[in-house]
Amino acid sequence: MSKGLLFVVSGPSGCGKGTLLAEILKNDNIFYSVSATTRSPRPGETDGINYYFLTKEKFEELINNNGMLEYAEYCGNYYGTPRKPVEDMLAEGRHVILEIEVQGAMKVMEKCPDAVFVFILPPSLKELRRRLNKRGTETEEVIEKRLGEAAGEIRQAYKYDYTLINGELSKAVDDMKAIIRAEELNAKNYPNYINEVLENA
Amino acid sequence: MSKGLLFVVSGPSGCGKGTLLAEILKNDNIFYSVSATTRSPRPGETDGINYYFLTKEKFEELINNNGMLEYAEYCGNYYGTPRKPVEDMLAEGRHVILEIEVQGAMKVMEKCPDAVFVFILPPSLKELRRRLNKRGTETEEVIEKRLGEAAGEIRQAYKYDYTLINGELSKAVDDMKAIIRAEELNAKNYPNYINEVLENA
Repeated sequence: MSKGLLFVVSGPSGCGKGTLLAEILKNDNIFYSVSATTRSPRPGETDGINYYFLTKEKFEELINNNGMLEYAEYCGNYYGTPRKPVEDMLAEGRHVILEIEVQGAMKVMEKCPDAVFVFILPPSLKELRRRLNKRGTETEEVIEKRLGEAAGEIRQAYKYDYTLINGELSKAVDDMKAIIRAEELNAKNYPNYINEVLENA
Repeated sequence: MSKGLLFVVSGPSGCGKGTLLAEILKNDNIFYSVSATTRSPRPGETDGINYYFLTKEKFEELINNNGMLEYAEYCGNYYGTPRKPVEDMLAEGRHVILEIEVQGAMKVMEKCPDAVFVFILPPSLKELRRRLNKRGTETEEVIEKRLGEAAGEIRQAYKYDYTLINGELSKAVDDMKAIIRAEELNAKNYPNYINEVLENA
């Protein structure tokens, strides 16, 4: 059995990566990495599904034992990606998708250089503005701030292995599937193909 | 406009790469690299379609002026890949497929490190033997020789970027399409996406 692949996916708020990844996760062999946090569960949230809810002590113990692929502190709480569940799934031959912002992705890149980094782009900043306006949940001021952050993130997209534009959802889904399949066929990931072919003579 | 991509495809005799590539070449933006040779045209062969038919002097002039991506001598004739038609197509944004055996591919790798190298594998040597037998055109002795050569080529497949198994044709075609699409999305090939998204604000 081959090891699974870790796909690290970033993209600015409004690029549609949630919808896109929901389609990709319909594949039986692709799983989502669940984050850990020290904040309290909100009503309806389940441990191990929405987050791993950890105490501050447990979270810090994991940090100190290299048990986090990346983490950050936000509003007095820790958020991060526990290493073990990801490595267990990969060892079982499952692919793992880690959805994360750029700074976290760069930390994962240091720890997991074999991971595949994918940046989801909106068709344009203009279209991103239209999508954020359409949500109707944020003030004009917040939207401008989001657009500024988005431009900053997009400028770092060149650090990723792949960039794909989420214009038409079905095309973006096909593109993401093509990336996953091509990585499965990449000789650096599955050299054992070759021996299997030779053995069966 | 983005530059096209050069795909260098190898695989042992009987792996079915001809049938596979015929499907891929139905795409309007993917072209086949035509080889050059000093041998005489056979009845029905057209210059520029089957081969570029060159004089020995012209062929050697191209060799000396770095005009060949690779070449070899076989039965007293030269065979090779002229550089200019390939580069012209790439500059026009077209993808080019170069079907070539392993030694030639390794020479192209030196001159075109950005090319994408794909090795087509049969499902097994056993299946390759079955396919070669089915053709019914070769003696048992020739088939054994072919299988020995195939094993030698397959052992070099790890030098390629991708390996794909041509078991079921439609799946192999989808795999090759996934590789082509993923390479189009590879940040090293199309960083200009990023600027285009940022410019349209």
